[in-house]
Amino acid sequence: MGSHLVDSLLQMGMDVVVLDDLSGGFEDNVPDGATFVLGSILDEALIKELFARHRFDYVYHLAAYAAEGLSHFIKGFNYRNNLLGSVNLINASVNHDIKCFVFTSSIAVYGALEPPMRESDVPVPEDPYGVAKLAVEHELRVTSHMFGLPYVVFRPHNVYGERQNLGDPYRNVVGIFMNRLMRGEELTVFGDGEQRRAFTYVGDVMPAIARSATLTAAHGQVFNVGSDDPTTVNDLASAVMTTMGRRGEIKHVEARNEVHQAWSDHSRFAEVFGDVGRTSLHDGLARMARWAETAGSRSGKPFEGIEIRRGLPPAWESIS
Amino acid sequence: MGSHLVDSLLQMGMDVVVLDDLSGGFEDNVPDGATFVLGSILDEALIKELFARHRFDYVYHLAAYAAEGLSHFIKGFNYRNNLLGSVNLINASVNHDIKCFVFTSSIAVYGALEPPMRESDVPVPEDPYGVAKLAVEHELRVTSHMFGLPYVVFRPHNVYGERQNLGDPYRNVVGIFMNRLMRGEELTVFGDGEQRRAFTYVGDVMPAIARSATLTAAHGQVFNVGSDDPTTVNDLASAVMTTMGRRGEIKHVEARNEVHQAWSDHSRFAEVFGDVGRTSLHDGLARMARWAETAGSRSGKPFEGIEIRRGLPPAWESIS
Repeated sequence: MGSHLVDSLLQMGMDVVVLDDLSGGFEDNVPDGATFVLGSILDEALIKELFARHRFDYVYHLAAYAAEGLSHFIKGFNYRNNLLGSVNLINASVNHDIKCFVFTSSIAVYGALEPPMRESDVPVPEDPYGVAKLAVEHELRVTSHMFGLPYVVFRPHNVYGERQNLGDPYRNVVGIFMNRLMRGEELTVFGDGEQRRAFTYVGDVMPAIARSATLTAAHGQVFNVGSDDPTTVNDLASAVMTTMGRRGEIKHVEARNEVHQAWSDHSRFAEVFGDVGRTSLHDGLARMARWAETAGSRSGKPFEGIEIRRGLPPAWESIS
Repeated sequence: MGSHLVDSLLQMGMDVVVLDDLSGGFEDNVPDGATFVLGSILDEALIKELFARHRFDYVYHLAAYAAEGLSHFIKGFNYRNNLLGSVNLINASVNHDIKCFVFTSSIAVYGALEPPMRESDVPVPEDPYGVAKLAVEHELRVTSHMFGLPYVVFRPHNVYGERQNLGDPYRNVVGIFMNRLMRGEELTVFGDGEQRRAFTYVGDVMPAIARSATLTAAHGQVFNVGSDDPTTVNDLASAVMTTMGRRGEIKHVEARNEVHQAWSDHSRFAEVFGDVGRTSLHDGLARMARWAETAGSRSGKPFEGIEIRRGLPPAWESIS
């Protein structure tokens, strides 16, 4: 998502400094014309130094370890990374009078509410990842009241597209499926595969997120953003196989504790941002597959530092 | 609050291990019969070691830096201390199959809602302290769903009483007033002093909190707990002066960004815990004053590590 955002920002004529610890991405993805800094939002001294040196106007904060299902088992890591890292950026943004702080939250804040989720719904997150994202949303609201920091919150869902990290075994089922197909491996599906998500093509949403910082009508608001078309994980698996012209065996494993249905209403977003891209799943998968076949498969790495092993899905236990 | 809880637990016949970093308390306050460990909930290795060694049945988690107004200026410290510290305890509690985790949240989760606050209200915290407490509440709910950890959440408010840290310049206005009167200093009141709080005598609430871990009717629930009688800060100042027989000048300083009215409804608590103590403000202040005059005043220390200085009340800037 970050690299696509930077494409949009550069097109808007902005000077862009990218900070990434490359825990889930690759320097090759940083578009030409942006300045790349290797480092983490957890490095408070680095954050202070960057804000002092570059005197940023806007902050787009997309850094996160977005392994929602895994977050139950890595609570401490989740809150350090997703909440404390965010707080470092928020502190620096107050201290340097940033004009707008744009934050990508997640549909995970809603939990198991009846879809389509609306921004007026009261969030009841069902995993530590969602709790951390919701806490950052509260933190931005509180900071705006107290210090006047303008902000925009987006709650995207199931974003996929070119440059995704195909080697991540925990995040982003589209990339996981493509990677496994290219490696001739079976596709693992948790439970019956009838859980539904609205998969969102990255190119449809990032230009609007880029614009939001300078769009005062968006300030102080929370927006669902993403596709309106829910698809089951089973149908996604078929669609990915068709698109790639590769067959893989589907292996159903024990259901994990996850929200069964998750998609959201986007009328508030449409009101403020107007018409944006609506790439069909068919077309989006085709674009991503073309890229993936060129980029090639990647090998996964197990997460090191599991904090609770009880109930960890065996499919994740055995990643090696 | 911790030392009063331990009194109740010892009376119930429990073996008690106390963990405290003494950042806001004193070892002298640990009741005889309890085992004291000097250390912090942020010390993950220590937490693991204590849980493995003592095989606790119950965890009562009261550790926090509860300087609500200051939390705007020490966001990172607030979340590390109040959220990450809690997560260390929750992880260990899951890994060691604790029978019940009792957590003292705060009325701060409600923010500026119309009082009396009810547990059915949707919390809208107005400061980082409240955001952190609310995140821990969500975290316990999620952990209970995922791993079956039984828990009870209390949201106390404005607790005062014997053994309070009189030297803390940021927390607990009753202690601050008593300390300043004994030192012959003026009483600082933010704004017009007409903000109202229901000050709660510590001895009224801790026995119920102690009982809650073994009271299955309380498990999985959130309870407001505290006094039903709101008092203005001005009236509190008069009452403290009368009780102590000491006069002090009241100095009104610029209002800070705080919730104006905060007290809560306790019918859910009464249903589950029945009749508990209802010490009047008059009697509670008398008991605390008697103790304070014996204990003597303490000098305050400024908080080191302010992260945002903008808007820090001058009364806090000048603490030395």
